[in-house]
Amino acid sequence: MGQAEADQAAGAPAGPLSAELLHRMHGYWRAANYLSVGQIYLRANPLLERRLTRADIKPRLLGHWGTTPGLNLLYVHLNRLIVEQDVDMIAVIGPGHGGPGLVAQTYLEGSYTERYPAIERSRGGMERLFRQFSWPGGIPSHVAPETPGSIHEGGELGYALAHAYGAAFDNPDLVVACVIGDGEAETGALAASWHSNKFLNPASDGAVLPILHLNGFKIANPTVLARIPEDELASLMRGYGYEPFFVSGDDPMIVHQHLAATLDTVMHRIRAIQHHARSGTEPSVRPIWPMIVLRTPKGWTGPKIVDGKPVEGTWRAHQVPIADFEDSEHLVQLETWLRSYRPEELFDGNGKFLAEFASLAPTGHRRMGSNPHANGGELMLPLTLPDFRAHAVAVATPGCVKAAATATLGGYLRDVMALNLATANFRLFGPDETASNRLQAVYDVTGKTWMAETRPDDTDLSTDGRVMEVLSEHLCQGWLEGYLLTGRHGLFSCYEAFVHIVDSMVNQHAKWLKTTRSIPWRRPIASLNYLLTSHVWRQDHNGSSHQDPGFLDHVANKTADVARIYLPPDANCLLSVADHCLRSRGYINVIVAGKQPERQWLGIDAAVRHCTIGAGIWEWASDDGDPEVVLACAGDVPTLETLAAAMLLRDYVPDIRIRVVNVVDLMVLQPQKAHPHGLDDRAFDAMFTTDRPVIFAFHGFPSLIHRLAYARAGHHNFHVRGYKGEGTTTTPFDMVVMNDLDRYRLALDAIERVPRLKDRVPAETARYWAMMERHKLYVAEEGDDLPEVRDWQWAR
Amino acid sequence: MGQAEADQAAGAPAGPLSAELLHRMHGYWRAANYLSVGQIYLRANPLLERRLTRADIKPRLLGHWGTTPGLNLLYVHLNRLIVEQDVDMIAVIGPGHGGPGLVAQTYLEGSYTERYPAIERSRGGMERLFRQFSWPGGIPSHVAPETPGSIHEGGELGYALAHAYGAAFDNPDLVVACVIGDGEAETGALAASWHSNKFLNPASDGAVLPILHLNGFKIANPTVLARIPEDELASLMRGYGYEPFFVSGDDPMIVHQHLAATLDTVMHRIRAIQHHARSGTEPSVRPIWPMIVLRTPKGWTGPKIVDGKPVEGTWRAHQVPIADFEDSEHLVQLETWLRSYRPEELFDGNGKFLAEFASLAPTGHRRMGSNPHANGGELMLPLTLPDFRAHAVAVATPGCVKAAATATLGGYLRDVMALNLATANFRLFGPDETASNRLQAVYDVTGKTWMAETRPDDTDLSTDGRVMEVLSEHLCQGWLEGYLLTGRHGLFSCYEAFVHIVDSMVNQHAKWLKTTRSIPWRRPIASLNYLLTSHVWRQDHNGSSHQDPGFLDHVANKTADVARIYLPPDANCLLSVADHCLRSRGYINVIVAGKQPERQWLGIDAAVRHCTIGAGIWEWASDDGDPEVVLACAGDVPTLETLAAAMLLRDYVPDIRIRVVNVVDLMVLQPQKAHPHGLDDRAFDAMFTTDRPVIFAFHGFPSLIHRLAYARAGHHNFHVRGYKGEGTTTTPFDMVVMNDLDRYRLALDAIERVPRLKDRVPAETARYWAMMERHKLYVAEEGDDLPEVRDWQWAR
Repeated sequence: MGQAEADQAAGAPAGPLSAELLHRMHGYWRAANYLSVGQIYLRANPLLERRLTRADIKPRLLGHWGTTPGLNLLYVHLNRLIVEQDVDMIAVIGPGHGGPGLVAQTYLEGSYTERYPAIERSRGGMERLFRQFSWPGGIPSHVAPETPGSIHEGGELGYALAHAYGAAFDNPDLVVACVIGDGEAETGALAASWHSNKFLNPASDGAVLPILHLNGFKIANPTVLARIPEDELASLMRGYGYEPFFVSGDDPMIVHQHLAATLDTVMHRIRAIQHHARSGTEPSVRPIWPMIVLRTPKGWTGPKIVDGKPVEGTWRAHQVPIADFEDSEHLVQLETWLRSYRPEELFDGNGKFLAEFASLAPTGHRRMGSNPHANGGELMLPLTLPDFRAHAVAVATPGCVKAAATATLGGYLRDVMALNLATANFRLFGPDETASNRLQAVYDVTGKTWMAETRPDDTDLSTDGRVMEVLSEHLCQGWLEGYLLTGRHGLFSCYEAFVHIVDSMVNQHAKWLKTTRSIPWRRPIASLNYLLTSHVWRQDHNGSSHQDPGFLDHVANKTADVARIYLPPDANCLLSVADHCLRSRGYINVIVAGKQPERQWLGIDAAVRHCTIGAGIWEWASDDGDPEVVLACAGDVPTLETLAAAMLLRDYVPDIRIRVVNVVDLMVLQPQKAHPHGLDDRAFDAMFTTDRPVIFAFHGFPSLIHRLAYARAGHHNFHVRGYKGEGTTTTPFDMVVMNDLDRYRLALDAIERVPRLKDRVPAETARYWAMMERHKLYVAEEGDDLPEVRDWQWAR
Repeated sequence: MGQAEADQAAGAPAGPLSAELLHRMHGYWRAANYLSVGQIYLRANPLLERRLTRADIKPRLLGHWGTTPGLNLLYVHLNRLIVEQDVDMIAVIGPGHGGPGLVAQTYLEGSYTERYPAIERSRGGMERLFRQFSWPGGIPSHVAPETPGSIHEGGELGYALAHAYGAAFDNPDLVVACVIGDGEAETGALAASWHSNKFLNPASDGAVLPILHLNGFKIANPTVLARIPEDELASLMRGYGYEPFFVSGDDPMIVHQHLAATLDTVMHRIRAIQHHARSGTEPSVRPIWPMIVLRTPKGWTGPKIVDGKPVEGTWRAHQVPIADFEDSEHLVQLETWLRSYRPEELFDGNGKFLAEFASLAPTGHRRMGSNPHANGGELMLPLTLPDFRAHAVAVATPGCVKAAATATLGGYLRDVMALNLATANFRLFGPDETASNRLQAVYDVTGKTWMAETRPDDTDLSTDGRVMEVLSEHLCQGWLEGYLLTGRHGLFSCYEAFVHIVDSMVNQHAKWLKTTRSIPWRRPIASLNYLLTSHVWRQDHNGSSHQDPGFLDHVANKTADVARIYLPPDANCLLSVADHCLRSRGYINVIVAGKQPERQWLGIDAAVRHCTIGAGIWEWASDDGDPEVVLACAGDVPTLETLAAAMLLRDYVPDIRIRVVNVVDLMVLQPQKAHPHGLDDRAFDAMFTTDRPVIFAFHGFPSLIHRLAYARAGHHNFHVRGYKGEGTTTTPFDMVVMNDLDRYRLALDAIERVPRLKDRVPAETARYWAMMERHKLYVAEEGDDLPEVRDWQWAR
């Protein structure tokens, strides 16, 4: 301890830390800060054993210093809590730009070297640690999948607190510390996430400790929450249902004591809340959980002034505070900065962290970088799955019976829920739409999680329910991600159009999954499963704003390692697909299925066979021999229209030879080299032909089919119909008419493309327009679909 | 007034409403509720002149009753305020499901009939009003573009308050009442929007009056904010910086008086705040604006019990409370409900609203359904635009000079800002990225809006700044939408990857724009302009999480009427494109441009010519005569790699004949029948050839090029390189290598596809791999790009 510092420590206000512990913790913090600055700047001379030269400095300086010292401070203090109270804790680091800090911390505690043996705890290892950071072929600049102990990539801001809650659900012994940057706090997703405490049960779930870190600045601006009066901020936190504790300062010794005391207090509150809730005599009520507001300078302990401009405590500390080493003054300044941490007091001559400080870290799985919850695949138990065949709809002949696909699935999900109640590792997520999406059978075995007030008329609410309903797609997604990343399972059912709200979150999760494929120590986690329903074609109550199938395009852009899209045409196919998805690992599975009663096509055995291949000729709907035209379809409504078109065509042209092909797994359309599900060319060509017109009726935007199938030999014959952006509040049949996806249009499309029928085109076109005229008159007059459309029955 | 009601009125607590006014306002409310129920249910018998029969009832009952009576109540009360205080007011209706209410209100005040003359204010008009609602070919069920007075489609929840603030900016005389449903309040976007008050200047902007309407339920669940203690909710609102006023009740007479008194109070506060701010002597400080929490039953005045289950005041009132008229009991119940509003006291025998009530409405442009701010195109002034040529980069020969494209644009935007300061109708929006995106020249003429606390070190903050920076893409987008919809102009600059956060908002705005194309009275508004920068190829500080070009795919799905995508290859092209976009109307313009210093290709005249056509052969980079291979490119980095590949190819094969085609306007690739910008086939084929290999280097996902160009004659020759999901924190050149978009790969692609070079493929492949080996070794060792790549210069 330097004299000045000793004086400071001695003069610091009384607190829980003895002078000796304070000295050691401060040293630990200095070590982490030193290693953080080293990562940003140095390629050599890691222990500053000689004067710094330009050759020691990386050619490209990339990274973020500003948030890092605050994260390092918190990590050191959370470590103390873990050790003193034997806490099972992970940290979710919202300001993921502070990558160097988390890498430094996991290196100091030993977790890093266990995951990456080449990064030894020695001079050489330290040099490699520094050099790899933001170095080509090295590690990314952010907290990332590569970072031990992380379940959260900190690049895109907004999701830290939702991830933290997702991790805490059903993990009663876990405490999730969640650091929220004041920049992140301005985002929509984060602003909504505070209310997650209305959905966390102190008896059966773990605790989340939000730590709002006000360092005052974003990239180039002050932050809103740092620039409102403290009583307003306190009021905001109380309004969110938390008891805020403030820790502020720029004197390390004072902040150390204050933060330590505050952490003791909040941990005591958390334990008291849990003890009370778990003592079991009283009904669960929502507690007021503690949270911390930590206000410290941005870029704390970094250079105060560079080139005459203030840096520490300003937005200028955001990335690399000193750059441009053409200026030799800067070199001196950097060396001074690095030496200010006095590395020689912290590391021995071989670069080993001195035991005096190193012994502060927790050990084994208590180290946050080694906590198995943050590598959820290590803990994941497979779901116990019921026999989905028991839920099958009996289909004596195709089209003979109607069923609502998602309601059928609801029965299956009820059994999934029931079979996994004991392990408490399956939840259903939805933005207030579970019943609207016809999955309400799950309420037979569990309720909807609700810790806010209840009233006598409420139905299916429960403090320990396993259905998560909140009107925020961001929260559903973020909670589920956190739940999966800590080794559990789930399904997110959402209105198809509004799942676009989480497009960007899907990107980030897909990137995470892709990256973890090449990180050996990351164990596979359960897939992120979407059930998209209340889809574009059946938005009876709503109309245009609720009609958009473009999420499929979004997911199709994700890497083939990760993206899976299924469009089961009926209830039995939906059962087969859903069962498959719940067993799969590491994918983003998108299932689209309608919720209205519709005709059913395949018995359960046929459905399983069909879904296993992913696409197939429906022989029972096709004519023998070489087809003149292929009617292809993907999606429940397009399948209905296609089969109706086949009937019309046989009526118009009795000797026509039609083949009906149904596609369940959209990725079969891609070449095998582009996607593992891609059909090989021979099978594809045999199915779709290479020389016959293919009238493809698709659930989504037609261009997606072209984009997936463009390299196929017969692609030039593909004529795709789908959603083209037309729609309003109207009848089901009018919706398909507006988008040229209706049976009459499909039939005319076919006639136009079969060469021998060329002469009939004028007459059939006239018939088509007469039909459309009748349709328009009827719906305008009656406000409902034509009876023959409403009551249409398949016949062969 | 019925006797019971007269007693109620007499017994109501004293309030600002005289008994007579209370009676008339209550009658007005009854009328609006009657018309709302009528719209949901009736196709005939609009005045209930005979007993209701099943034939009077629509065959398909679609719509939402639950939120409607509350909205009707507010509208009546806001009307009183408008009339009594001559307020210039519009209303943003977050719970847009309450479409029937807003349609009813604008019909009662006369605005509706002025816009839609067939919907007369008579029995026949009323019947048409009822029938058209949620009827095929009629009007949508939500508040929609078709609804007079609306700037907000209420289908997708979350954006009401951001729209309201956007409307209020620079409209000092306007008061925007914003109704926020308690369902909507759970969304991320809405949760973030409350803090918009830190960006609204009471002197130069209008006022926003948030009205949080707690009717307690979403589709199937209670809402969070309705189920926390009132003091917690009040604390939340205070934390957001508002002074909350609570109005609660289920007795209409009491609620009328309480609401009226509260509105008087809050309007008084608003005027006092504005008066203070505008008196001009003191510096602007952020005031505490008032807001209202209105707690009334969901489905108020509707049926209390249906089929033995409570409806009014529960989630069961959300959509159509009584359905299934096979049950004759239901028919009686509906008739009782409708007659409870006593239409015979409100409308004369011809269906005309009685003057006693009708005279309460404001007149002319004071009617919220006729306020010109809600049809912004009526008020829009074109921007005064500077000569963009004055900002041109001098390019003596292609590639001879470097410039940062967005910094060049920054100078132009500074002049745009300066020229339109007087009209105060242009703002720049960005999530804390304006300077990061190199547009900081605008700070020469205006600051960043900031009404929160300031400190001495702050730079460029200003209470009347015109640059809007908040770390929320949702707010940037929502504010800008509100600003545009009320007749102003703007530009949203955003990191490319994170604009996905607003994918769903873009969908909704695109739908709005498309729909307004066919509404004659909706005047065109300015385009929504995006500048996407800090793009996928140059995320030096960040890496994978910041790399995603998929927004282009998302926008390409929008209707061709609306979507425009530009990829200017250099600064002068960016100037030309930006100028074009700022002059355009009613589009979504996406511009992608880098912020790093890069080589410049075209002088300003050439740039204008190039951008006007949208794509062209770069003769100066091409060989004369019939090409053997076409090197096409779109985007700045792909253009650089393509030109470098051309140089390499000429080095490898001196007599090779190359054509370089650059695409600025991505939509030229689509067939003319698919997009108005599509090149006609002859021009396209002449440019790209139909029989030569096209190596297309693209900024985004390669599949987008295939999807746009698949119908072109030469498409089977297109070989597209682009982003394929690979990336991390690395060097610029390594990024293109990781995605096979680098010059060496492009050159090899060309050699592989030129028939006469077939024999050279093995040697060139070996050369390619040797090059890659050198690259990998160099960057791994040096942490930077190869010097010949870093310092590459174009030569011909």
